[in-house]
Amino acid sequence: MVIVMAVDATDEDITAVVNVVSSAGGRAFVSRGLNRTIIGLVGDVDLFDSLNLVALPGVADVMRISAPYKLVSREHHPERSTVRVGGVSIGPETVTLIAGPCAVETPAQTLEAALMARAAGATLLRGGAYKPRTSPYAFQGLGVDGLRILADVRDKTGLPIVTEVVDAADVPVVAEYADMLQVGTRNMQNFPLLQAVGDARRPVMLKRGMSATIEEWLMAAEYIAQRGNLEIVLCERGIRTFETSTRNTLDIAAVPVAQRLSHLPVIVDPSHSGGRRDLVLPLARAAIAAGADGIIVDVHPHPETALCDGPQALVDEDVPRLAEAVSVMAAAVGRPVTGVPALAVS
Amino acid sequence: MVIVMAVDATDEDITAVVNVVSSAGGRAFVSRGLNRTIIGLVGDVDLFDSLNLVALPGVADVMRISAPYKLVSREHHPERSTVRVGGVSIGPETVTLIAGPCAVETPAQTLEAALMARAAGATLLRGGAYKPRTSPYAFQGLGVDGLRILADVRDKTGLPIVTEVVDAADVPVVAEYADMLQVGTRNMQNFPLLQAVGDARRPVMLKRGMSATIEEWLMAAEYIAQRGNLEIVLCERGIRTFETSTRNTLDIAAVPVAQRLSHLPVIVDPSHSGGRRDLVLPLARAAIAAGADGIIVDVHPHPETALCDGPQALVDEDVPRLAEAVSVMAAAVGRPVTGVPALAVS
Amino acid sequence: MVIVMAVDATDEDITAVVNVVSSAGGRAFVSRGLNRTIIGLVGDVDLFDSLNLVALPGVADVMRISAPYKLVSREHHPERSTVRVGGVSIGPETVTLIAGPCAVETPAQTLEAALMARAAGATLLRGGAYKPRTSPYAFQGLGVDGLRILADVRDKTGLPIVTEVVDAADVPVVAEYADMLQVGTRNMQNFPLLQAVGDARRPVMLKRGMSATIEEWLMAAEYIAQRGNLEIVLCERGIRTFETSTRNTLDIAAVPVAQRLSHLPVIVDPSHSGGRRDLVLPLARAAIAAGADGIIVDVHPHPETALCDGPQALVDEDVPRLAEAVSVMAAAVGRPVTGVPALAVS
Amino acid sequence: MVIVMAVDATDEDITAVVNVVSSAGGRAFVSRGLNRTIIGLVGDVDLFDSLNLVALPGVADVMRISAPYKLVSREHHPERSTVRVGGVSIGPETVTLIAGPCAVETPAQTLEAALMARAAGATLLRGGAYKPRTSPYAFQGLGVDGLRILADVRDKTGLPIVTEVVDAADVPVVAEYADMLQVGTRNMQNFPLLQAVGDARRPVMLKRGMSATIEEWLMAAEYIAQRGNLEIVLCERGIRTFETSTRNTLDIAAVPVAQRLSHLPVIVDPSHSGGRRDLVLPLARAAIAAGADGIIVDVHPHPETALCDGPQALVDEDVPRLAEAVSVMAAAVGRPVTGVPALAVS
Repeated sequence: MVIVMAVDATDEDITAVVNVVSSAGGRAFVSRGLNRTIIGLVGDVDLFDSLNLVALPGVADVMRISAPYKLVSREHHPERSTVRVGGVSIGPETVTLIAGPCAVETPAQTLEAALMARAAGATLLRGGAYKPRTSPYAFQGLGVDGLRILADVRDKTGLPIVTEVVDAADVPVVAEYADMLQVGTRNMQNFPLLQAVGDARRPVMLKRGMSATIEEWLMAAEYIAQRGNLEIVLCERGIRTFETSTRNTLDIAAVPVAQRLSHLPVIVDPSHSGGRRDLVLPLARAAIAAGADGIIVDVHPHPETALCDGPQALVDEDVPRLAEAVSVMAAAVGRPVTGVPALAVS
Repeated sequence: MVIVMAVDATDEDITAVVNVVSSAGGRAFVSRGLNRTIIGLVGDVDLFDSLNLVALPGVADVMRISAPYKLVSREHHPERSTVRVGGVSIGPETVTLIAGPCAVETPAQTLEAALMARAAGATLLRGGAYKPRTSPYAFQGLGVDGLRILADVRDKTGLPIVTEVVDAADVPVVAEYADMLQVGTRNMQNFPLLQAVGDARRPVMLKRGMSATIEEWLMAAEYIAQRGNLEIVLCERGIRTFETSTRNTLDIAAVPVAQRLSHLPVIVDPSHSGGRRDLVLPLARAAIAAGADGIIVDVHPHPETALCDGPQALVDEDVPRLAEAVSVMAAAVGRPVTGVPALAVS
Repeated sequence: MVIVMAVDATDEDITAVVNVVSSAGGRAFVSRGLNRTIIGLVGDVDLFDSLNLVALPGVADVMRISAPYKLVSREHHPERSTVRVGGVSIGPETVTLIAGPCAVETPAQTLEAALMARAAGATLLRGGAYKPRTSPYAFQGLGVDGLRILADVRDKTGLPIVTEVVDAADVPVVAEYADMLQVGTRNMQNFPLLQAVGDARRPVMLKRGMSATIEEWLMAAEYIAQRGNLEIVLCERGIRTFETSTRNTLDIAAVPVAQRLSHLPVIVDPSHSGGRRDLVLPLARAAIAAGADGIIVDVHPHPETALCDGPQALVDEDVPRLAEAVSVMAAAVGRPVTGVPALAVS
Repeated sequence: MVIVMAVDATDEDITAVVNVVSSAGGRAFVSRGLNRTIIGLVGDVDLFDSLNLVALPGVADVMRISAPYKLVSREHHPERSTVRVGGVSIGPETVTLIAGPCAVETPAQTLEAALMARAAGATLLRGGAYKPRTSPYAFQGLGVDGLRILADVRDKTGLPIVTEVVDAADVPVVAEYADMLQVGTRNMQNFPLLQAVGDARRPVMLKRGMSATIEEWLMAAEYIAQRGNLEIVLCERGIRTFETSTRNTLDIAAVPVAQRLSHLPVIVDPSHSGGRRDLVLPLARAAIAAGADGIIVDVHPHPETALCDGPQALVDEDVPRLAEAVSVMAAAVGRPVTGVPALAVS
């Protein structure tokens, strides 16, 4: 941390800052300039945060110069991580395709969507049984019934399941069925939920909050990691801006930025970013080209009757185009598309 | 709803839309123009939403023309509501001051802050026992111990308590102690939490999400109302923008806009909006001048040692200035400052 | 400036930074910590900026710790300034009302609007002869003919004129007619225009860019000041955010923040902020309550036929309500409403 | 246009709207629903805009349902356009690389940068002689001297020149030297400048305003087109959001969205989007993968001494990596990299 003193700070002010830091066990280094003095701190940043140094007389500003997250940071873990979900890898060596319906509606619809996903080259199945919806009058998901449908479709297709959990109290039941727990954009700072998935023995996909900075996103991941669960995949899904022609603005630079700051894998959701079927393939290509470790895509056998987010789902005729887009782009960045796990094949 | 057909939509496309709407029990009115046709729908908007009309051939756009919220809307409830919290009113007749520490730290600090609040003219005490913090390494609140401290301070000062709840599972215990439940900005779309406070027999203060539109805020209130709890106070606390000199950007226009759309009271948090002590009084004045039904302000006896948000708390010397700002501005808009309830006085 | 060295910076890296700074005439102070070294710089910040220090080996970050503007800063000019426009003051002692039509359309409409403005207590007349319009097919203003109408109405009403200039080449002709030159939101970073109004002998109203930070706004004012013209009034008119219920989001905190950073007067435009007639009075009240030195309001005798921004103009029946809002709020903050200048009265 | 009447609109209100539209030469179609009436308008949208229909009694909302731009729209010009700059194509058949220094500083630096550009496969040279700078104390460009340097480097390298113009008055002199005029992000709504480049006989690169919607961007292009110049290339360069780890947020979806709405070519600036050298290649790859018709990249032989935007420039060692990124990604999307024009080769 660096403390910038005000132009009119007195020697007493400077001494007082040094004393507060010292008495808290830290070390302070004073640099006097012609107009201002700055004080560098060495020690426990969290402790310094709690000292509320900015409130001391003569202090103009306090600047943090190291990342506030530790476990998910690449500083002490330079190698990028690979997360395994039911035998399927998500990490720097490959490009993983996750696909499925936004919401689980019926067994038939879910199975059809899963077969579309598999035909497109997906090795993980997404699908929501608990849906966070802006309106209390909208379809809220099938709950446990939806989880059972997903498990059944997993048995039939061999695709491990990624599904959302929206309440800390539901984590045990969702973890019983799911291979990977998804924390959605509206819950990125639902801290009890983060702690609960941190306690679960399941990998977690953490979507970026729609107005979260990359630093806040990594802090949310730190909440999960701090409970002992480092099997976390970050998912960029678009941020909220003034632009209205797309549902959200895909922050494509978040992929290389987050990968540089954190060792965790980073994937992209081109469906929810744009909110439009016609943008899914261009955004999917861009994501892989930017270095994403995977993408997660909505597919639906009958989007015109979908209970959730139909306008953005890919349809049957898009499946071969998605498969081609993923394989061509993965080849262009020199990474194979993640295959079916050996165990599942046997 | 209005459906705008594409320029090249065929008669078959138009007939198909009419049939889909009709078979779902709605009525469709076709207006043919020189270039385009528009179709007006009458019936159940939620049903129409589920039809995914935008996916039908020839449909260019679907526009909703009535508010998606009902119970909190002023359309069917033109009179503005007053919410009572432990005998204290928040509503259009008065200006209510809520004050207290950001976080409950110790019995002494909480009592001192409550006495500051009362000296400033506050009739409700705010204070957090459960704190949502961006970092897992930051102080997370005292939990039930904090609730007990608040209840004790209520006994000593006569001030009813407003306190935050961050997890649906905690609602019963918080409701046992608190006079009003607060849902914070990061939880505005934590739907299980909204439903849980909707089930509780306690008034609710719903803070606006830091990137929520006013419509989404009212939809979140609708979640609470739909469970039968209409004792809701909306709290504007600043939104996230590109400006960096303040912590958030107070959306002062949200006060009259929300009051025009909804019958619920609307208050303002000038402390968290600006995030700076020197901005609290100007923003508090602006809020009352814009018609806010109250304000909620951080005060702290010793902000330099506060465990949470110290830089924005008012201190002892600010108390008379806050009292004066509230009374002068309330007088200027022709509303009395909310007094202590008759029962509490006796 | 403070230079933060990387964790793995070498002694050679540190020495190199010090040498670069020294050879450019600056002084560098090195603070070595356990993990990192920071280097404080004293000297000419603009020079340091040009050194591109962040590109040197081992440099992790470079932080500026003093304001990049000088002439408009309050650091060296602690007293707040008053700007005089045709004898009318805008400054910290009073509250000034500026009103008039968005665009000059006809002599009759302009005169009627000016009489409305005067009836509301305005002492300056606004009105646009050159209109920046998003569409090339929209009304672009009357140009010099509009300036002549304004001058004629000034003769008839005694109200000095504030009018926009949109091109550096037009500054001389606009300055010939106008008492104050307005630089609009879309031109806040039109640097040749800023320099041209800086060269003119006329006070300038500088509207904040709709996506400009407060610092960028002050830097734009610095462009004008640097040419020798310090007669500048800053005008907050709303910023662009994700909220769609208002045209822009009035950043009410910008008033006290800009007043603290700069000695220049700060006024507010409640008409363009909200873009809705029903929000003008609440936002005007909020602006004065927050400490604005004045407000600028659209009025129109027949807004239903206005060629520009009709939906936000106040109408005849609003005039007494505007007058009352301004006088009541000015009284509440202890400032008189700016009166007609003595010369104009005689 | 569609007019949505208020729930309580009377028959007289509806008749009045129809009459206003009819008397202005338009046609109005009334659709009565159970709760509301909507009125569809056919005729001249600009005329309807000027009627200020939203101010009529009983009108709740007015919605535009066709694009406000015409000449740049793809509605009446479905084929995507190719723009030729000194013989070099920018359009849907190829991927064009434009590269060069942010600012022209010296003949040697400009030539070195141009040779880097050519080595990377660029067929157009960028470089600024007139620089819009946030600070009046920053380097503002060499002006005409810079144009002469560019022309000289064009002679030596065969690369046509793209350079910025910041004032309408400078358009003739810049057009004398440049092969393509660039309108920068801060000037996207500098309407006199747009009209001046519309009058010039030179192709124009129009950068998106940092807070402009895609619709506003296309309206700005319409200003140029309306003057008879349809040789326009749109350039996405990042928008302003709350994220602070990048200088701007590259709106990658703007590429397919703008290409769908307009027939004009769309390119991407990965250097100014991210503002960081380490992000240039990932963003360049993403842009081409998303379908961009070209990219424009900062290169500098000695970025550590650059007078402008040094931190984002690619350096010598990046040149082969840029060349490879462009050729691999162009191949992946099935488009050749734009070659040197036949004439220039001979």
